[in-house]
Amino acid sequence: MTTTAGILIIGNEILSGKVQDANSPYLCRELRALGVEVRRVSAIPDEVDTIAEESSTFSEAYDIVFTTGGVGPTHDDVTVEGIAKGLGRRVVIHPDLERVVKELYPGNVNSARLRLAQVPEGAELLGQPDLVFPVVLVKNIYIFPGVPEILIQKFNGIKERFRDAPFFLKTVFVTDGEGAIAEHLNAVMREYPALLLGSYPALNNPEYRVRLTLESKDPAYLDNALKLLVSLLSASSIAKVE
Amino acid sequence: MTTTAGILIIGNEILSGKVQDANSPYLCRELRALGVEVRRVSAIPDEVDTIAEESSTFSEAYDIVFTTGGVGPTHDDVTVEGIAKGLGRRVVIHPDLERVVKELYPGNVNSARLRLAQVPEGAELLGQPDLVFPVVLVKNIYIFPGVPEILIQKFNGIKERFRDAPFFLKTVFVTDGEGAIAEHLNAVMREYPALLLGSYPALNNPEYRVRLTLESKDPAYLDNALKLLVSLLSASSIAKVE
Repeated sequence: MTTTAGILIIGNEILSGKVQDANSPYLCRELRALGVEVRRVSAIPDEVDTIAEESSTFSEAYDIVFTTGGVGPTHDDVTVEGIAKGLGRRVVIHPDLERVVKELYPGNVNSARLRLAQVPEGAELLGQPDLVFPVVLVKNIYIFPGVPEILIQKFNGIKERFRDAPFFLKTVFVTDGEGAIAEHLNAVMREYPALLLGSYPALNNPEYRVRLTLESKDPAYLDNALKLLVSLLSASSIAKVE
Repeated sequence: MTTTAGILIIGNEILSGKVQDANSPYLCRELRALGVEVRRVSAIPDEVDTIAEESSTFSEAYDIVFTTGGVGPTHDDVTVEGIAKGLGRRVVIHPDLERVVKELYPGNVNSARLRLAQVPEGAELLGQPDLVFPVVLVKNIYIFPGVPEILIQKFNGIKERFRDAPFFLKTVFVTDGEGAIAEHLNAVMREYPALLLGSYPALNNPEYRVRLTLESKDPAYLDNALKLLVSLLSASSIAKVE
């Protein structure tokens, strides 16, 4: 079975349109390349109860869960508290993280900075010693910060643990519109029901009108489905196959 | 009470990282400018049952719901079917939309193209006669296409109906780090619990280290909270206030 994933983007700044989320597009691309199927991305506000409910629901529904944002020293950083509440665990100071905080702020560890060492009870740390601040994993929930540069660094530090069998992809660019080719797509889906077949119209593109994506984890199945599709489309309507 | 909204992004291409969703950032910005509070954005796959469950949940939870994507003539366009199922309604052909489809494809309306005229039973059409393809509204769910250019055109055609009292925003740029100012933010929140106060660290920005956003629908409340915050921060740490 393909590994499934859910991504939880935590932050009022996303919902209020002040910041455009760059983390979920990055994670979706990376996880797909690793062979993982992302089933849902949700952006929610910095609220303990909302985070508790969503992270707990995601944790039950998907093999792995990623959260981004809401980790830091200020009042609106409530991700750890929310996840802990959702899992019915306490928030505790992790001694390894406390050591990191003390090294970063020698002689100057106030209560705000100490929040950076808080984890849900029973959490483990990943990516040490390469990562100064390791990734916090609790149950199947990987807790990431919202700052994209740091998220990328941390994800790269642990991503190999997520690798699954790859998806194989073929793309067919068609000069006919969707309405003209829909019946052929239906015919392919009847013959290859497990095929992942996407149809995406392109506006104002001089080279093609529809981009068709065919995917499978089974390359022979994919090739056979592609052959059937190409045989059904009129040859003159295929701009290219990649 | 502020109008609340949920946005449902429907499309495997988003979750598989092939296409970066541009619609939810646009809608979040626009709705915020209209005074609407977006409470959640979720991206989900092109699956009837998932769409049914999510759209129904969103419809109950928020005043208004927007869906994007999954409307079109091909097999993976199942948004209308999913929303109808979630609301316990049938899918029917809307006569006004059927007329539009017949005008667009004279003498050439196949079953795929006729899908463009399908709506959940009881849906109404908005934005006529300005929009060639009007917006479909069923219950409190506004159904939008996934192609950003068309979504923008349609949203602009009906957006005034969503206008609510505006949010007022002040931004304070601070040269201290979050750990040094967290206690002042807590003090402001104790005094002004209804303030929307966000704290966002900036990496590698030579001008400031933290961007603080203060928001309220009550401009006097906002100004008083801003005055308190500025009085608490050291004057030398404030790079600018906007």
